[in-house]
Amino acid sequence: MGQRIDLNCDVGESHGAYRIGADEALMPWITSANVACGYHAGDPLVMDRTVRLAVQCGVGIGAHPGYPDLLGFGRRQMQLSPEEIENYVLYQVGALGAFVRSAGAKLAHVKPHGALYNAAAKDIEMARAIARGVARVRSDLILVGLAGSVLIEAAQEAGLRVAREGFADRAYNPDGTLRSRKLPGAVIEEPAMAAERAVRIARNGSVVAYAGEEVSLRVDTICVHGDTPTAVEIVRAIRQKLEEAEIEVSPIERFI
Amino acid sequence: MGQRIDLNCDVGESHGAYRIGADEALMPWITSANVACGYHAGDPLVMDRTVRLAVQCGVGIGAHPGYPDLLGFGRRQMQLSPEEIENYVLYQVGALGAFVRSAGAKLAHVKPHGALYNAAAKDIEMARAIARGVARVRSDLILVGLAGSVLIEAAQEAGLRVAREGFADRAYNPDGTLRSRKLPGAVIEEPAMAAERAVRIARNGSVVAYAGEEVSLRVDTICVHGDTPTAVEIVRAIRQKLEEAEIEVSPIERFI
Amino acid sequence: MGQRIDLNCDVGESHGAYRIGADEALMPWITSANVACGYHAGDPLVMDRTVRLAVQCGVGIGAHPGYPDLLGFGRRQMQLSPEEIENYVLYQVGALGAFVRSAGAKLAHVKPHGALYNAAAKDIEMARAIARGVARVRSDLILVGLAGSVLIEAAQEAGLRVAREGFADRAYNPDGTLRSRKLPGAVIEEPAMAAERAVRIARNGSVVAYAGEEVSLRVDTICVHGDTPTAVEIVRAIRQKLEEAEIEVSPIERFI
Amino acid sequence: MGQRIDLNCDVGESHGAYRIGADEALMPWITSANVACGYHAGDPLVMDRTVRLAVQCGVGIGAHPGYPDLLGFGRRQMQLSPEEIENYVLYQVGALGAFVRSAGAKLAHVKPHGALYNAAAKDIEMARAIARGVARVRSDLILVGLAGSVLIEAAQEAGLRVAREGFADRAYNPDGTLRSRKLPGAVIEEPAMAAERAVRIARNGSVVAYAGEEVSLRVDTICVHGDTPTAVEIVRAIRQKLEEAEIEVSPIERFI
Repeated sequence: MGQRIDLNCDVGESHGAYRIGADEALMPWITSANVACGYHAGDPLVMDRTVRLAVQCGVGIGAHPGYPDLLGFGRRQMQLSPEEIENYVLYQVGALGAFVRSAGAKLAHVKPHGALYNAAAKDIEMARAIARGVARVRSDLILVGLAGSVLIEAAQEAGLRVAREGFADRAYNPDGTLRSRKLPGAVIEEPAMAAERAVRIARNGSVVAYAGEEVSLRVDTICVHGDTPTAVEIVRAIRQKLEEAEIEVSPIERFI
Repeated sequence: MGQRIDLNCDVGESHGAYRIGADEALMPWITSANVACGYHAGDPLVMDRTVRLAVQCGVGIGAHPGYPDLLGFGRRQMQLSPEEIENYVLYQVGALGAFVRSAGAKLAHVKPHGALYNAAAKDIEMARAIARGVARVRSDLILVGLAGSVLIEAAQEAGLRVAREGFADRAYNPDGTLRSRKLPGAVIEEPAMAAERAVRIARNGSVVAYAGEEVSLRVDTICVHGDTPTAVEIVRAIRQKLEEAEIEVSPIERFI
Repeated sequence: MGQRIDLNCDVGESHGAYRIGADEALMPWITSANVACGYHAGDPLVMDRTVRLAVQCGVGIGAHPGYPDLLGFGRRQMQLSPEEIENYVLYQVGALGAFVRSAGAKLAHVKPHGALYNAAAKDIEMARAIARGVARVRSDLILVGLAGSVLIEAAQEAGLRVAREGFADRAYNPDGTLRSRKLPGAVIEEPAMAAERAVRIARNGSVVAYAGEEVSLRVDTICVHGDTPTAVEIVRAIRQKLEEAEIEVSPIERFI
Repeated sequence: MGQRIDLNCDVGESHGAYRIGADEALMPWITSANVACGYHAGDPLVMDRTVRLAVQCGVGIGAHPGYPDLLGFGRRQMQLSPEEIENYVLYQVGALGAFVRSAGAKLAHVKPHGALYNAAAKDIEMARAIARGVARVRSDLILVGLAGSVLIEAAQEAGLRVAREGFADRAYNPDGTLRSRKLPGAVIEEPAMAAERAVRIARNGSVVAYAGEEVSLRVDTICVHGDTPTAVEIVRAIRQKLEEAEIEVSPIERFI
């Protein structure tokens, strides 16, 4: 780690007549794609199209399971039992896996979405339930979780490979947690600034926190949010700056 | 064929707090289970429980994909495009397949549900779309369709193995089609009568149609509807009569 | 209050091919019906049928809105914003109100369902959001909430009429809260015992708590759960005992 | 009729995080809004926001009920029973009506959406089911249907007021039916051309059909599709040309 990094983005979030995201424009610049599985976003046609696009672009493909809440886009916390979470994850990853195999590729990773990702970062029971669901699909899958969170722990306990995730377009607190979206300055929309942060994360294993301190941040993959208005510019800037800095940008499955 | 037959039933149709079917009571008597996949019925917990029960009972496991219409239980015709059907089938079969593999078993077959089954029996484009969806999951899957229908044709074109289905608890017209459920006498609820018909189907390859004529009916598997009030008695009677008649009752995957 | 009481039950919880509850058997014994509105349970046909049945039985009709979570039957907590709750309540109560008017009756009350009811009992912001949604439909509606909970407070603030609810088939803690369903003895399934408790609640304004202490419990309406196996026996026993004790059993709208 | 016309548009079609349509930009130019009701599109927050916007703009408000098929945006034919259609319409119109009353306005009309509109134009049983559902909400509602279709007939039979609809941005066949969207030239995207057609419809009661013949077309309201890329320009051009031609453009409820 350190001189190698993956760039991931959530894609395939359209649903029927509804379009979200600029998948075609983003895909050439990223190295891993997290594809929605029809619960909080996505649908079978969108999954098929998105997986084919990822294959064409040589991008690593992951499942992006979420809560069964299309109306809330999977961003609202739901109190599910561990058994529900485990089986909802298995269902969604299983469904996406069929599209990936049918496109001649292999599913590389799983990253929980939205409120499920947040619950998994803090609640070890939820994290373990996700890890069990993933391990039931294939024990060699990579589970992507917030660096330093309990999801990483649970994935390792379950014998899964893990990828620690950080954010170039989000501000950090001095303790290494993410600055709340409710506070000003939580999201970085300026491409050059996000790119500079990405290089520092990849090279130094650190970020400058909101108040100015340098905070250690060891990550394998950097997430760029596809729904920021400047998403395409940010991804392109990050990719270019990483390559100028001679940091290898490649899918997590190549180095985890 | 002729002295070997499979007995199949639609199972796993509960959803959340809602219960349908007597899966525990039926499973010991059948040889193949068609498990709902969450679109018209079923949910991930129900799928998990149902697949485990089928494995315990040594029953062959199939996916039972349907229209995305829980409110209509997949029984209302929907005009979907071939591309939608193909990908909805791939999604559902892919999801169920993950539960089956995770239970240490192998998915054996796919049988479309309700209005999708009926559309596939008559409309060659819909039948081909289903066959493509199934073949994209695994080319050695068995596709179960109404004996004599275009779904059998489409499955063979697609290079899939096929199982022709008949009904011991439904009356037939002289031309070998099913008597409409809207007409009296369409459903046979008397266990002994259903059992006698099953034996004739398996041994002679024929049924006595509603008006009395003997009609040729070559089938590999007999379906018993789990939602008739006397379903368990019917299945048990059929199983016993078949065994008394020294007809081998075994999962389709063993002889197709 | 004291010598007058309402008996309410949640009804109309079937959905499409799925049946829950014994509405026909329960309706003649209750005085108020809380009808599911299609979000956590129910559907337009079920709503229509249930409202007509309530009108035939002379039962007061209320809306029973819940979370948009059919898979969880509205029993799983969801973190919705107050604006979402307000508008989800308005939507559901509005829809049910149209069925009630079309049946020649008048919507009398609203009682939140499951996890929404529980959230509303503890969280004043959620309670206020519900009260706003109800008041936007009609300012003379009665809002039914757990006796002593913040929902009663929020409803009064909003200028709505309120009905305080208690349970004859649930054990109480010494502080007047409900004994958790996870603990043994939380649910009372014995009809005679439930009936005796109902009489005490209506006459004395008190219950005997789990550990034996008498606890004050002033309520306007007693809820009987329609999903206990003995539900019909319990409702009948309660109704008979109340009448033997010369307590008037009538719809809340008659005395609130 | 003839010198008075209404301009209507389908609005409120966003759902959760998904956005469709340019409601804010369109609303000032139209006189009637058809608001989606949560089945094929829309949700309670979107309904609330859209109704308030319509009230601010002085636009007549109608319900726009559709099939329960969000994934297909209500554009896929579903074989529902008349009883299902009647109650699905009642549910959706009832829900929207609550938002309209709560905004201090009065629901003026109902226009079925997509595949339901098309079914209602050809199938008298479906048309009657819709009319019954609408009449059960309020017998003085206006039902909007394709000019010359059986929905107009069914609405009149049911004692409802009717508004006949025509299209300025769609090509017509010589027999007065709409040219299929599958054929070239079916949709008119050029604002000036659509505006000219609108004036001719309003003034002369006719359109020039695809092959050049003048066809009689007596309508009360002209629909502009909000999802054409040039929708705002088209609506503005139509409105301006109609006013230049001294044709009164006002909500249908004012003159039906």
